[in-house]
Amino acid sequence: MVNETQHSCSASSSSRSDGGSSSGSESSKDNSRCSTPVLDADRHERLREKMRRRQDAGDKWFSLEFFPPRTANAAVNLISRRVLQGRRGEVFDHMGAGGPLFIDVTWHPAGDPGSDKETSSMIIAYTAVNYCGLETILHMTCCNQSKDDITGHLQKAKRLGLKNIMALRGDPAGEEWEEEVDGFNYAVDLVKHIRNEFDDYFDICVAGYPKGHPEAESYEADLRHLKEKVYAGADFIITQLFFRPETFLKFMKDCQAIGITCPIIPGIFPIQGYHSLRQLVKLSKLEVPQEIKDVIEPIKDNDAAIRNYGVELAVSMCRELLDSGMVHGLHFYTLNREVATTEVLKRLGIWNEDPRRPLPWAVSAHPKRRVEDVRPIFWASRPKSYIYRTQEWDDFPNGRWGNSSSPAFGELKDYYLFYLKSKSPREELLKMWGEELTSEESVFEVFTCYITGEPNRNGYKVTCMPWNDDPLATETNLLKDQLERVNRRGILTINSQPNINGKPSTDPIVGWGPSGGYVFQKAYLEFFASSEIVRALLKVLRKYELRVNYHIVNVKGENITNAPDLQPNAVTWGIFPGREIIQPTVVDPVSFLSWKDEAFALWIEQWAKLYEEESPSRMIIQYIHDNYYLVNLVDNDFPLENCLWQVVEDTFELLN
Amino acid sequence: MVNETQHSCSASSSSRSDGGSSSGSESSKDNSRCSTPVLDADRHERLREKMRRRQDAGDKWFSLEFFPPRTANAAVNLISRRVLQGRRGEVFDHMGAGGPLFIDVTWHPAGDPGSDKETSSMIIAYTAVNYCGLETILHMTCCNQSKDDITGHLQKAKRLGLKNIMALRGDPAGEEWEEEVDGFNYAVDLVKHIRNEFDDYFDICVAGYPKGHPEAESYEADLRHLKEKVYAGADFIITQLFFRPETFLKFMKDCQAIGITCPIIPGIFPIQGYHSLRQLVKLSKLEVPQEIKDVIEPIKDNDAAIRNYGVELAVSMCRELLDSGMVHGLHFYTLNREVATTEVLKRLGIWNEDPRRPLPWAVSAHPKRRVEDVRPIFWASRPKSYIYRTQEWDDFPNGRWGNSSSPAFGELKDYYLFYLKSKSPREELLKMWGEELTSEESVFEVFTCYITGEPNRNGYKVTCMPWNDDPLATETNLLKDQLERVNRRGILTINSQPNINGKPSTDPIVGWGPSGGYVFQKAYLEFFASSEIVRALLKVLRKYELRVNYHIVNVKGENITNAPDLQPNAVTWGIFPGREIIQPTVVDPVSFLSWKDEAFALWIEQWAKLYEEESPSRMIIQYIHDNYYLVNLVDNDFPLENCLWQVVEDTFELLN
Repeated sequence: MVNETQHSCSASSSSRSDGGSSSGSESSKDNSRCSTPVLDADRHERLREKMRRRQDAGDKWFSLEFFPPRTANAAVNLISRRVLQGRRGEVFDHMGAGGPLFIDVTWHPAGDPGSDKETSSMIIAYTAVNYCGLETILHMTCCNQSKDDITGHLQKAKRLGLKNIMALRGDPAGEEWEEEVDGFNYAVDLVKHIRNEFDDYFDICVAGYPKGHPEAESYEADLRHLKEKVYAGADFIITQLFFRPETFLKFMKDCQAIGITCPIIPGIFPIQGYHSLRQLVKLSKLEVPQEIKDVIEPIKDNDAAIRNYGVELAVSMCRELLDSGMVHGLHFYTLNREVATTEVLKRLGIWNEDPRRPLPWAVSAHPKRRVEDVRPIFWASRPKSYIYRTQEWDDFPNGRWGNSSSPAFGELKDYYLFYLKSKSPREELLKMWGEELTSEESVFEVFTCYITGEPNRNGYKVTCMPWNDDPLATETNLLKDQLERVNRRGILTINSQPNINGKPSTDPIVGWGPSGGYVFQKAYLEFFASSEIVRALLKVLRKYELRVNYHIVNVKGENITNAPDLQPNAVTWGIFPGREIIQPTVVDPVSFLSWKDEAFALWIEQWAKLYEEESPSRMIIQYIHDNYYLVNLVDNDFPLENCLWQVVEDTFELLN
Repeated sequence: MVNETQHSCSASSSSRSDGGSSSGSESSKDNSRCSTPVLDADRHERLREKMRRRQDAGDKWFSLEFFPPRTANAAVNLISRRVLQGRRGEVFDHMGAGGPLFIDVTWHPAGDPGSDKETSSMIIAYTAVNYCGLETILHMTCCNQSKDDITGHLQKAKRLGLKNIMALRGDPAGEEWEEEVDGFNYAVDLVKHIRNEFDDYFDICVAGYPKGHPEAESYEADLRHLKEKVYAGADFIITQLFFRPETFLKFMKDCQAIGITCPIIPGIFPIQGYHSLRQLVKLSKLEVPQEIKDVIEPIKDNDAAIRNYGVELAVSMCRELLDSGMVHGLHFYTLNREVATTEVLKRLGIWNEDPRRPLPWAVSAHPKRRVEDVRPIFWASRPKSYIYRTQEWDDFPNGRWGNSSSPAFGELKDYYLFYLKSKSPREELLKMWGEELTSEESVFEVFTCYITGEPNRNGYKVTCMPWNDDPLATETNLLKDQLERVNRRGILTINSQPNINGKPSTDPIVGWGPSGGYVFQKAYLEFFASSEIVRALLKVLRKYELRVNYHIVNVKGENITNAPDLQPNAVTWGIFPGREIIQPTVVDPVSFLSWKDEAFALWIEQWAKLYEEESPSRMIIQYIHDNYYLVNLVDNDFPLENCLWQVVEDTFELLN
């Protein structure tokens, strides 16, 4: 009988031997243990392993190239959701949802690419990995740079969680390029340097030129250079763009003929406009075939027509490449634009229309966090702040929150500069949250308008709140009526989830994890409320003592809870075939006190500071900050109807 | 507002300071983390902490004293279930179910009490702790023993997981006792020695004499001796038996008056018979009050009448003690008999009528295992073998099986001597399992009779099997009809559980864990079957590929499974208020291969070896051992009707 057992312990191995495919190996004598159960193999594999697994399985895949934007505003548009008057940014999140195998970020030597600026290649790549959960390749060029600089960049990349480098020569500074004696002259030098200094840590990608590099002596000489790069330690090749499928297929055969066996990924450039095409052609010293020129020249002022043609052309070329059987993945030069590439991918049928979430929250791609599968619910609407505040942790909770050895959250300091601060300008926020507040009730109104989506008394919609950069989640919509009712009366909700008693893991709204499973939730409600409300609430909660767990805290840290022994309460969990139970969200009494600091600080940093000091508006927010309590409630009886609304009703009744 | 947060991190602290009560302390600034969530505080506390917690909570409790039996058979009766012709032993398990705070085991210097014999005090206490999960005090006497011997005993006790010592002088060997110059002369010497050599590791109990020690100069002098013992490091006092409540209450007040503040537990002796009373009185040099003699003498030959009187007397004395408000716990001298003590406890209302299981399986009280909350399902009917085979582990799985760092199970060697070997004599087993087997079908019959409870063809009931020392569990009874059907046809079941979709944790049959929770199970079926059946089964299983996980292995270790990545599958779990999820039972592909060795070995060791070598009966069992497969199936779709019976039906259909 055949041994069909499969291993995944190889996830922790970093052997470069590609021979050890993980399936079908002998296991009956094997007593070794995976130290961490694997929910999602993707999180545990290196890029080259993912590539190989997809190829072995016959899956087609794609990847996306971006360049670092020039302005901070454009950076926000690329990486962070911004909701204002219907406009939406967040290219990474949108395009990430389609399921690219990886993205890559280009390296612009003139733009201080290794710095800490919001717009540097390094920081954009870091953000993609850590906050957007995208497998990412950082480009790096080597000419005109010292060994020390390069090593410094690589060390920083490693520290920031980057795992893949595209090793490039880069364009020489002057007109006439001359070899430097001790420097890096070719990409192959960089490949060797990375392998020398960092052993096998990075996956390395190199560039291939289907028509030969424009500066190479010959096509054949360029192929030999490519082979050198691969033999020096590159794991795969991405090609320069080309205009005809046969160009790539010939190149690929020629590569194979001289012994290049690693994956070669064709670079696809969907033509998106007349000028961008001209610019790219100039930079890359490629020649546009006459048949393409013939089509484009007559429509050069019609952007839509050119883009349509570009999509058509790309789709037909990609189809031919995929049909050849030699191509398993396609690399897209997106020019940071979504539409054309998304359209091509959708028409090819390799855009993931129904993205399955591995966990209820977006996972990070930092290698340190690959086992992370539990987070406190408090940061549900501020995941980037959570990732930021836990970035110094050495271990991440795996399986249980209670086993986390890293209790310390980062101090509340400069992170609001980029991650805590709302992205909207002050004037917009004032329109949403009130130019002038007259009472606590006018604050209740803001919360209510955010819930209902109705315009406020000045006709503006409230599309974000200090605690939520985004509009209400689809899931929260289910609770809209109740939320509206309670916010109107001063229970200022900032987080909630309904109870769920075993919905399929494929449920489009609440599902997550592998298919064939069931997901569960305990009802959760978190809000600010006055001490008067809290006094009544505490009386009401006595009636619910065994059913409802609560934590109530004010800005001074005065803390009331009935949580047994400071244990975390699992409020989201999933049961899956052949796996241990996954419990990705907990209400943790200890981290609630760290969240409390952030939640109260947001009143001041994001709201109060919109107003003049000493102004009545500012004093109202300051009063709430100083006197209200932050409350969270969990209804433990998930199979029954959520009782938290009844708790709140009972509280209002007691107050009347 | 009051801070009501409670800590339990103190579980890991071994500070002897009794001042730090765990409730009500400041927590708002506390960022420390419990490293292990606590399902059951009892498992994490020292005996003296439990005692204090019960007292603070106003709970009344009891404890039970046993002496080591003289014969191995009596030892089995005390500690291990034996089911034969309706007779049942297992005093520990029975009386443990009533909820004693602890039991204690006396030390008989003449009986080689520290040896490895089944009947030694040391081994009886070890068994109570490790296999019965009872908090246990081991008595130890010191007179006429060398320091080295004593230290050796204490080291061994510590190694075996014992945590509490009752420090006694013991009876001197000769008629006239003389102090030894360098030896231990009094219990206080032993207390000091334990604290010197083992610091705070042990909880120490000492004996108190409500009437004064018979050899003491005076009652007052004896009180001073007692105070010395407490000041030397004893944690609490258990008293010698007495006959009138006022004797104890006076003693207690006298103790307090001279500064003895530790708990003092009255020793209760329910009179169970004329002779046992006389013997005890003689040994303890106590005088029986005239009013008791007056009642007993006339009925001295009527055991039942004396016992009834003894129960009455004990109940009324205990009531008076408890009503005094000075007594929180009662210690019973059981004489290894259940009836009288149980009766007294039931009438006092402190016998636990509805024992709540903290986990679906019986937990061990060994301190190494106090975090253990996951086990593979395979040993469900052989927990003692499981404990034995994992006794060398340094860590026990806590929260997740996958995180266990101790994969290695003990070799299959001598443990069957006591734990693996069936307790019934060979002749009994032959009557149950067949004096002569004629075919594989006659083996099927044995399995079927075990399931149905019907007598076999020779008129004997099959009350145990090599894989189950006990009769079918109540839970398995739910599956009886299906089990009968499949065993008749050669699917020889040895373990199974039904699916459960969220029953209350207080359910009398399947419930476990704290109240207010919900328990779940995936359906499980484990059986031996011929290779012909397995071939058909594998075809059928293709239809159930996403729903059913299977592991199929033969004695040679040839192994077929569809388990993803060798991950464990949680098959029992519970959701509780304010806690992370508990998943105490898993189907683990790796440990299944260790269980396989044991499961196949049982065919030979327990069954085949009943017959002559070369006999047809033996060859039939040997054939099954060599050729059958051990199969386990899990139906992952726990909310739907269990499909495993359909899988088996489909298999039979395919075979026809």
